[in-house]
Amino acid sequence: MQSWLPIAPDSDFSIHNLPFGIFSDERPARAGVAIGDWVLDLAAAYALDLFPHYPEAGGVFRKPVLNDLMTLGREFSDYVRKTVQHALCEPGSVLQQYAGHLLIPLRDVQMHMPMKVGNYTDFYSSEEHAFGVGQLFRPENPLFPNWKHLPVAYHGRASSIVVSGTPVRRPWGQVGQKDGNPAFIPTNALDYELELAFVIGKDSVFGRPVPVGEAEDYIFGVVLFNDWSARDIQRWEYQPLGPFTSKNFASGISPWIVTWDALQLFRVPAPAQSPAPIPYLAANPRTNFDLSLSVSIKPEHGEESVVCQTNARHLYWTAAQQIAHHTITGCNLQTGDLLATGTISSRELTGKGCLLEATVNGQQRIQLANGAERRFLEDHDVVCMRGFGQKENVRVGFGELRGKILPAISA
Amino acid sequence: MQSWLPIAPDSDFSIHNLPFGIFSDERPARAGVAIGDWVLDLAAAYALDLFPHYPEAGGVFRKPVLNDLMTLGREFSDYVRKTVQHALCEPGSVLQQYAGHLLIPLRDVQMHMPMKVGNYTDFYSSEEHAFGVGQLFRPENPLFPNWKHLPVAYHGRASSIVVSGTPVRRPWGQVGQKDGNPAFIPTNALDYELELAFVIGKDSVFGRPVPVGEAEDYIFGVVLFNDWSARDIQRWEYQPLGPFTSKNFASGISPWIVTWDALQLFRVPAPAQSPAPIPYLAANPRTNFDLSLSVSIKPEHGEESVVCQTNARHLYWTAAQQIAHHTITGCNLQTGDLLATGTISSRELTGKGCLLEATVNGQQRIQLANGAERRFLEDHDVVCMRGFGQKENVRVGFGELRGKILPAISA
Repeated sequence: MQSWLPIAPDSDFSIHNLPFGIFSDERPARAGVAIGDWVLDLAAAYALDLFPHYPEAGGVFRKPVLNDLMTLGREFSDYVRKTVQHALCEPGSVLQQYAGHLLIPLRDVQMHMPMKVGNYTDFYSSEEHAFGVGQLFRPENPLFPNWKHLPVAYHGRASSIVVSGTPVRRPWGQVGQKDGNPAFIPTNALDYELELAFVIGKDSVFGRPVPVGEAEDYIFGVVLFNDWSARDIQRWEYQPLGPFTSKNFASGISPWIVTWDALQLFRVPAPAQSPAPIPYLAANPRTNFDLSLSVSIKPEHGEESVVCQTNARHLYWTAAQQIAHHTITGCNLQTGDLLATGTISSRELTGKGCLLEATVNGQQRIQLANGAERRFLEDHDVVCMRGFGQKENVRVGFGELRGKILPAISA
Repeated sequence: MQSWLPIAPDSDFSIHNLPFGIFSDERPARAGVAIGDWVLDLAAAYALDLFPHYPEAGGVFRKPVLNDLMTLGREFSDYVRKTVQHALCEPGSVLQQYAGHLLIPLRDVQMHMPMKVGNYTDFYSSEEHAFGVGQLFRPENPLFPNWKHLPVAYHGRASSIVVSGTPVRRPWGQVGQKDGNPAFIPTNALDYELELAFVIGKDSVFGRPVPVGEAEDYIFGVVLFNDWSARDIQRWEYQPLGPFTSKNFASGISPWIVTWDALQLFRVPAPAQSPAPIPYLAANPRTNFDLSLSVSIKPEHGEESVVCQTNARHLYWTAAQQIAHHTITGCNLQTGDLLATGTISSRELTGKGCLLEATVNGQQRIQLANGAERRFLEDHDVVCMRGFGQKENVRVGFGELRGKILPAISA
């Protein structure tokens, strides 16, 4: 595919991608598709009759979230993408004729939360991460007995999920001390967690499990996810019901939802599972996506340093297994829900998806450019996550997920 | 206050109560207020100009959830209640003139979820319950070291919260076995949890803790809450991130939101706390509500038996403390969120708010009428929760929260 629009070969937003998002300029927030350095205004394109097969669907492009658009199903979003793809390749198309009106430079728009998140669930699907964290606290037995039998997860906080660029304030909280009493301090162990999140695009039925073989039908697309965590608060609060305030202050997502269709080229077999999972979790084939992921830290007056490089292909539990497990009791999924993978790590020392692992719970320091070091995040640090698939000359990426740490509220 | 409408003296829906809910008859779901054996159709009352101080507010009564009504603030809902109260007492009021049109028998309406729940958080605020459950699994040290320093909680699943009357299917899940491998079975340890849930009626700001002294301003009202639980699934899955599928299949709420204003008469001092909480949790006065709570079980072919009688007055952590802790990191609350108390138990053997406690994790049986017994719930059991405050001749109650157990989906 070759477009009349100049698109850099290393652009995350190639003609093969065309992710959906919500943007605004001087006009209100509405739906768009990213292409190269531009956003295509879908509401304006609809008004020019670019999508004739769905003459009634125009309203979904003018909404400030994509939930209604997703509700129309992947048939609809695939049609929109294919139509845009075609128009971007066809010289003299309406899109090209009105390019000045329909294509807005990305640098001139503000991105918003792409969806209203109903519920957000965070899994723990990377064996390298679960083993790595387990080793810190239970060296004799890093994985709990349940870990290889089910995708462990917890329900997270949806209200505080924010779009890339939203700064995050260092939270206060209770932290355990040697004398058994907690201190009340701004966290000293602020961390990121590099994850992917699957965006649910279809409601499931209350009381009915989703079979693992049908699970992927419920996924609209994927975003990068940063599950900000305060490790010292987490350690004190998490027993017996799991993490709460240590993770509820903010989670970040990348603004562009890369569609399920755009990711198919990057399918790879998932790692073999032993023991074999219980049939409701046994998919054949089991696949992941070959997506390169990275994290960088940029100190306030310093240079940006990449501190993690890993890949989503190694996840032990797949998206389909996560969904099958989530719904096995009859719990219903809703359009706009997010199912995150949990921190994605690899075996390499440079492939740890959070500082807890990379610094061995703050006992070691990681090196940044120009002699800077970190145990955990410092005020004014900017954390940036990136991810993309590349197969020969086809690249499909997420763009950036950025968040800056603001100092704690003063006492 | 004396109404021209005949209201039974033991009605939960006295003239002092006037809770808000969403009901439908042959016409679509809309807002109403319960009074005695009737529901007052607020949309119809508005059309008859019953609420002249808010001439623009009519739309909120026609919505199928109360979120927009709550967003108008407690000033608005208090005005509506006071106006209705006055009209119910004033002979010849418009309400009396059009009573046949405005008041619909409760038995003729269908109740619906009163709000769209954004996020639901379940606390663990009853010391008697936390101690009782802790004793089962850690007799030497029932309360974790954090328990007296903060209100322990976890984020629950909001999509599967259902209104009273919705049947609940016995879920399948993984259950640990002696050989270390899980069995995949319908739960053998299906349980209820008797709770209250505070309904949030005002958004808080992302990044800003809500001070404990202002926390109650965020509460619109209170409902009964049943956090259905599968204990055997919970035991296998909960480490290290807390309960997940064992509680995500369903939670029940009572359909009528009893307003914060209506509960004020039942304020009582909360139990003293030792050690003294950290200042952000230190409210003065700290109060609970004197509300009698009960649970009954009715087997398919048997009689209803009350199996628990307790009271909300003993909660160790109050609603204000729950909110202050929830937001201390900057996590934002949203209108429609639910903050549940966790199981409410008392010291007495008859005051255990769940079967896990009442049957010592299924090791003992509780007795029902006519020789029936239960370790955990059986198929076709109907669980009914009730709650009310009574002060002299003033009664304010929640009505009933019912749920019937359906057999598991066949294998």
